[in-house]
Amino acid sequence: MTNTIYSFAIGLGTTDSKGDIIEVYYPRPQVCSDASFNEQILNHCDWQAGHNGFTVLDPSGAETLANRLLADQQAELASLLQRMATSTRPLLLCASSSAAPPASIPEAFLKLHLLSHRLARPHELNLDGIFGVLRNLAWTNKGAIDLDDLPVRQLDAQLRGELLEIYSVDKFPKMSNYIVPTGVRIADTARIRLGAYLGAGTTVMHEGFVNFNAGTEGTAMIEGRISAGVVVGEDSDLGGGCSTMGTLSGGGREIISVGKNCLIGANAGIGIPLADGCTVEAGLYVTAGTKVNLLDHQGNLVRTAKAREICHLTELLYRRNSLTGSVEAVPLHKAVALNEALHSNN
Amino acid sequence: MTNTIYSFAIGLGTTDSKGDIIEVYYPRPQVCSDASFNEQILNHCDWQAGHNGFTVLDPSGAETLANRLLADQQAELASLLQRMATSTRPLLLCASSSAAPPASIPEAFLKLHLLSHRLARPHELNLDGIFGVLRNLAWTNKGAIDLDDLPVRQLDAQLRGELLEIYSVDKFPKMSNYIVPTGVRIADTARIRLGAYLGAGTTVMHEGFVNFNAGTEGTAMIEGRISAGVVVGEDSDLGGGCSTMGTLSGGGREIISVGKNCLIGANAGIGIPLADGCTVEAGLYVTAGTKVNLLDHQGNLVRTAKAREICHLTELLYRRNSLTGSVEAVPLHKAVALNEALHSNN
Amino acid sequence: MTNTIYSFAIGLGTTDSKGDIIEVYYPRPQVCSDASFNEQILNHCDWQAGHNGFTVLDPSGAETLANRLLADQQAELASLLQRMATSTRPLLLCASSSAAPPASIPEAFLKLHLLSHRLARPHELNLDGIFGVLRNLAWTNKGAIDLDDLPVRQLDAQLRGELLEIYSVDKFPKMSNYIVPTGVRIADTARIRLGAYLGAGTTVMHEGFVNFNAGTEGTAMIEGRISAGVVVGEDSDLGGGCSTMGTLSGGGREIISVGKNCLIGANAGIGIPLADGCTVEAGLYVTAGTKVNLLDHQGNLVRTAKAREICHLTELLYRRNSLTGSVEAVPLHKAVALNEALHSNN
Repeated sequence: MTNTIYSFAIGLGTTDSKGDIIEVYYPRPQVCSDASFNEQILNHCDWQAGHNGFTVLDPSGAETLANRLLADQQAELASLLQRMATSTRPLLLCASSSAAPPASIPEAFLKLHLLSHRLARPHELNLDGIFGVLRNLAWTNKGAIDLDDLPVRQLDAQLRGELLEIYSVDKFPKMSNYIVPTGVRIADTARIRLGAYLGAGTTVMHEGFVNFNAGTEGTAMIEGRISAGVVVGEDSDLGGGCSTMGTLSGGGREIISVGKNCLIGANAGIGIPLADGCTVEAGLYVTAGTKVNLLDHQGNLVRTAKAREICHLTELLYRRNSLTGSVEAVPLHKAVALNEALHSNN
Repeated sequence: MTNTIYSFAIGLGTTDSKGDIIEVYYPRPQVCSDASFNEQILNHCDWQAGHNGFTVLDPSGAETLANRLLADQQAELASLLQRMATSTRPLLLCASSSAAPPASIPEAFLKLHLLSHRLARPHELNLDGIFGVLRNLAWTNKGAIDLDDLPVRQLDAQLRGELLEIYSVDKFPKMSNYIVPTGVRIADTARIRLGAYLGAGTTVMHEGFVNFNAGTEGTAMIEGRISAGVVVGEDSDLGGGCSTMGTLSGGGREIISVGKNCLIGANAGIGIPLADGCTVEAGLYVTAGTKVNLLDHQGNLVRTAKAREICHLTELLYRRNSLTGSVEAVPLHKAVALNEALHSNN
Repeated sequence: MTNTIYSFAIGLGTTDSKGDIIEVYYPRPQVCSDASFNEQILNHCDWQAGHNGFTVLDPSGAETLANRLLADQQAELASLLQRMATSTRPLLLCASSSAAPPASIPEAFLKLHLLSHRLARPHELNLDGIFGVLRNLAWTNKGAIDLDDLPVRQLDAQLRGELLEIYSVDKFPKMSNYIVPTGVRIADTARIRLGAYLGAGTTVMHEGFVNFNAGTEGTAMIEGRISAGVVVGEDSDLGGGCSTMGTLSGGGREIISVGKNCLIGANAGIGIPLADGCTVEAGLYVTAGTKVNLLDHQGNLVRTAKAREICHLTELLYRRNSLTGSVEAVPLHKAVALNEALHSNN
């Protein structure tokens, strides 16, 4: 989190039966690295929230804001706002800075939108406490429904002979109903949470999965699971059913990542940050504590080390010797120098 | 199956084009451990079926039953019944005892409802022959459709430029369209069959799966697959893509289960009942016949045994030694006594 | 690809906002091994395309074709055509021969239909270049939508308080919205692409997956992933989460397949063609290059070989010795003769 990202967005909310906002859709969130920009916009809306907060716009507030946007040469955004103001749904103005944790549902949704719109990258936004802010909702063919309201809605639909199709009961919705970023294929949208960051050129196959605050930097073939916090470098391939340990559960404090030009084989897994150009053999799980025999080109043992101690080395093949059962790391190319490894004492 | 559970429920059915009932939704199934309770209710409905069976209620039958419920101080249930009687769908009264196998589609659906409503626990209900009783159906955005009726319905929708979205072709529907139990999150509802038992505090992530007659006893993080018949104890964590062998296929006669406070790592698997407090390392599959080196705290070999012979031992870490390739079980905590193991001869 | 398969079909198309056809549904594709049959039909439709191509039929063209079909004793097909001509959607006539690669979206969809209708088997149709022909589309509850049209459609729905549910963003749709072949169960239809070939008696569970140009020859229990190009023989069982390497990515030139009466255990995987009657132990990944100790019934080493060198041998159990860590192949039955293996020098 180097530079602060300031954002604001106009959204359409969903409310529960008590009128509380439980979910927000922002068609075109805006970001700026300059705090004054946001202030210029927001100061025209009876805005008291500083860089973080939201307000529900009434028709007069919407008109004021539209005029302000027009004056700022933001005709397209003004036009979008005017269309959104015609909806019967609540119209929201929300602002969020990357440094502050989300304090409300609209702010949390804005942060998740920023990630999936590629306006912020994983780890650039403060998402502390987001699980406590978001509400567990039923995501249905009739939109988001509060769980307290669900039984009545479900019964009503059944009485009418209709189906209230519940796709998910979760705090995070699926990304694609909010934004489909350009240049991606997603075989099964149920597997990508809002807040995922998919680089252009990414294909996520049916067995692939991407959590929020995680994703790919560019071209990638994802048939495995990208856990929360994990970023995959360009031109890497995650094989079917492979696993990356998340920082939310089980992965400890080490941030797991996948470098460029990596291949994690089918049903394999990593609990380490994988360096550029590395391959993990199909079916092999390398955790941080896995003891690995590091070999040179001739197959001679260089040293035995835990995976966390050698995982900075590039262009290695991690495999389990199928005759001895020992996990080995061998250079993928003759050109790979293991000098660093030879002389390393850590 | 110690005490018999007697149940009855009022449901709304779906019929095929011939008028046969193919599916039933019961919004509020009732259970009782006292057979006479059910009898009191049922005897007022021209009921001939004993403790197992169903009848389609006509308006007069519905009114009789509503009055009977009112007389029994069951005002809420009577009111629900009166609302359900206004539906154009067939209104059913169904009863089922836990001891008897399901003999009809309404009974099978009632049993599955009882499990997902947490009114019966896995293995408490006789489900013998349920695959033969249930019909393979298309589960669509227009509800359940018999497969013989499907091609015509599909073509008709296409001609109108509409989509008949088919979510599943299966004997078992997904749970959440019938009941979302309190205190759960289900990232992808397609992965939980009706008849699953999810304890309060259970989160099932996208890669998680729960079959019928299986589930969790309480708080749990499920990112792996809970096969039919498998029950997971409280505070256990099933890592991404992990597997539990079912008794339906491959698992033989041993009932697989997961104790309390267990962790099965990502892409791991078990073919044994796992004792409380045990961990299976990511990527390791322990079948009943896997030979395991049981070690003590110092790393000394206690004995070599098949996993089925030592799986009653608590607080073990199962891992594959990454240098020797041998599967080991080591105490997770110094306090764990292996005396039992030392002196065991089985 | 021994004999050429000639096919034609009448379909209903979906267009993008520019009027281009992006998707086609063919309710009843026709195949024939005789080229003259297709010619007889097509010559009555101002057809210039030879054995491969498509035309959009206007009402007069539809009537001409219906009359021709009636004259050919194809009353049922004529009647279907007349019904389809009443739709407001574009009516297409498309022809395709198995030898020619698909040159248009309608041809590509016809080929995929032929596979899923079991009118052609995997590898029987030339599918070269199909990724380049098909367009990446949003598959939604409102049908197929071009990605350029999606943002406007999505915003419009949100403004109306409706949900444009996006199930998939992919070149290939899911099979079941086009055809549900007889005698199959598919627990989660999102996991089967159009172009999959599912033999009668196939059950695909929630964790199962079948790509296009791949499938099962008959009775099968599929809880793992069948990659593009992979065919599974009768009475085989793919355990939960198991993997078969595809030829599209990672599998090289060897065509992976699964013989009859095979069992691939849960979380296991193969990068070899697996011979009839073989079992791969749960959790073991056997790639083509895996070195395997081939044992006889007494457990004596016959020879050590790469899996690709012994994978023609039937009725073997592939396992990893849980004490030594070495991958072994042992005869499943005493009757299995390893003579061939003993005398093999390859």
